[in-house]
Amino acid sequence: MLRVPFTDLYAALEGAMLRLGLAPEAAKLSARLFAETTRDGVYSHGLNRFPRLEAMVQNGSVDVTATMTRTAAFGGIERWDGHRGMGNVNAYLAMRRAIALARTNGIGTVALANTNHWMRGGAFGWQAAEEGMFAMCWSNTLANLPAWGTATPTLGNNPLVIAVPREEGAHLVLDMAMSQFSYGALASYARRGEPLPVPGGFDAEGHLTQDAAAVEASQRALPIGYWKGSGLSLVLDMIAAMLSGGLATHQLALEPTLETGQSQIFLAIDPSNLAASKELNHIADGILKHLHSAAPLDPEQPIRYPGEQTLKLREENLRLGVPVDPEIWKRIEKEARQFANQSEVR
Amino acid sequence: MLRVPFTDLYAALEGAMLRLGLAPEAAKLSARLFAETTRDGVYSHGLNRFPRLEAMVQNGSVDVTATMTRTAAFGGIERWDGHRGMGNVNAYLAMRRAIALARTNGIGTVALANTNHWMRGGAFGWQAAEEGMFAMCWSNTLANLPAWGTATPTLGNNPLVIAVPREEGAHLVLDMAMSQFSYGALASYARRGEPLPVPGGFDAEGHLTQDAAAVEASQRALPIGYWKGSGLSLVLDMIAAMLSGGLATHQLALEPTLETGQSQIFLAIDPSNLAASKELNHIADGILKHLHSAAPLDPEQPIRYPGEQTLKLREENLRLGVPVDPEIWKRIEKEARQFANQSEVR
Repeated sequence: MLRVPFTDLYAALEGAMLRLGLAPEAAKLSARLFAETTRDGVYSHGLNRFPRLEAMVQNGSVDVTATMTRTAAFGGIERWDGHRGMGNVNAYLAMRRAIALARTNGIGTVALANTNHWMRGGAFGWQAAEEGMFAMCWSNTLANLPAWGTATPTLGNNPLVIAVPREEGAHLVLDMAMSQFSYGALASYARRGEPLPVPGGFDAEGHLTQDAAAVEASQRALPIGYWKGSGLSLVLDMIAAMLSGGLATHQLALEPTLETGQSQIFLAIDPSNLAASKELNHIADGILKHLHSAAPLDPEQPIRYPGEQTLKLREENLRLGVPVDPEIWKRIEKEARQFANQSEVR
Repeated sequence: MLRVPFTDLYAALEGAMLRLGLAPEAAKLSARLFAETTRDGVYSHGLNRFPRLEAMVQNGSVDVTATMTRTAAFGGIERWDGHRGMGNVNAYLAMRRAIALARTNGIGTVALANTNHWMRGGAFGWQAAEEGMFAMCWSNTLANLPAWGTATPTLGNNPLVIAVPREEGAHLVLDMAMSQFSYGALASYARRGEPLPVPGGFDAEGHLTQDAAAVEASQRALPIGYWKGSGLSLVLDMIAAMLSGGLATHQLALEPTLETGQSQIFLAIDPSNLAASKELNHIADGILKHLHSAAPLDPEQPIRYPGEQTLKLREENLRLGVPVDPEIWKRIEKEARQFANQSEVR
């Protein structure tokens, strides 16, 4: 495994983003979000996504020069159009706007239409929690999950993020898709020939299975909680598309590099006018102390809350260097170098 | 099965509520919510809950004379104290207040501390959708669900409700607890000796099982989506307790008739200033048309959305009479009669 210093990763990604055609400020922001995602251990949605992003810029799915615009506003809620710009930049700015609305109104929401894949949804939960906000955000996706009762992929796996702020950065950030396993996770279990830890979908005969390859073949991944996750995925899609006025899951292209035009919701709540931070922390600490006191089934695996592992990985990756895929890293470095040369020539 | 006209059910419940000591307006509202719950086919949380409610009034867990009060407010968000009053009345008034806040601010939230079991959470989703609102609400509960990685019930099954308004009353209302099956559902499968349709928890040896009696015995019910529902249940509890300043799951008494002091969140979004109702309906219709067009695995079981069955059951029960448990019905009628006599004597 190759490890590179975080600052090098960030700088190279910034160069690569500039080379892709992003404006300086957007390039800096997008590069930071990609680099932090890899730094926090969400390897599938950081640096490793760069090649797909590049393909989507080249095929016109992502317009790197687009800037989102507000289309409607009333009190604490606003509608924005992402103009198919950079997904992580749009999402960051949408959450930033929701946070500003929450500061003024106690609670704020941005419904964003016509955007692109936000990469790691959890990033926007951390962003809000760092500002002392409770937050919730979700995105619809292309149809990759059969609704309960059918074998046809009709629903998106629509990631849902919920953040709870705590003092000293020890926030809780839940970041979960509506499918029990992502296709990325299924592929890696199949490659290793390992059974899934719990049933992850149906095989060709319609039986629940822990065989990842069988689920990949049938395309019948399992919604979390069976009919429950199916219903939850549906209503998240409806709220996102209806409030933003944008596209719903059934309207998004099925080819991943053409999946553009997602609808997303960003909601922030500012607790600071209701209670002192100390009171909130006291309640949170009580809940987490109780959780941690439960006897683990496996003594090696203490009970953890969502986001607890992230801070450990972040610290480790900052200390030892951030693990990168050598092939992709070489490519990014080259892009960054080419941008630097290009600038000098100009 | 005994069926009684809805108006008789409502009237008898109103009498019984007055006899329990509720003030006239609260009695009317609480009776209506109980009667509508049974009318809509949610038999476990309507009339059949009356005996437990009675026990909780008698043992002091529910104070039928309490009125909720506002403890903090800022823009679109407010904190209220339920003073351990009637759970369904408090929840209805909290959602009504969230709706009023949404009319003024676009989005509104009420965090309610110190309340009681809201009975059927979906009622407050229907309430908001009838006013043209998107809504979300949830409650914490006593600890009845092991967090992922432990066998000890540490989390609540914290019901979550999400409502999407549509024209002509055909709203979507998702009403789901964080456990795959309620203990009520497990008991009824066990009584019938039927296997659960999907694994519902762990047996004494720690294996996933479809044997309802084994889950009842181990008390290891399954969170929806395993670790995902476990994380979701935790953050819902934290948001409810922290924003309301009330109790968390780990602080609620484990004996069901002593389970009092829940924390709840009510959130409403008014879309009317962002888009015309016609535009919203067009988007919703497209999504539901696509859902309904998916080929069902069982031709007898067309794909349905959350709440779709409710309208059919409601119509049927209004036409044929509402099914009631004869024993409980007799008891309610007696209570109502006693109240009537009592009033005459006075």
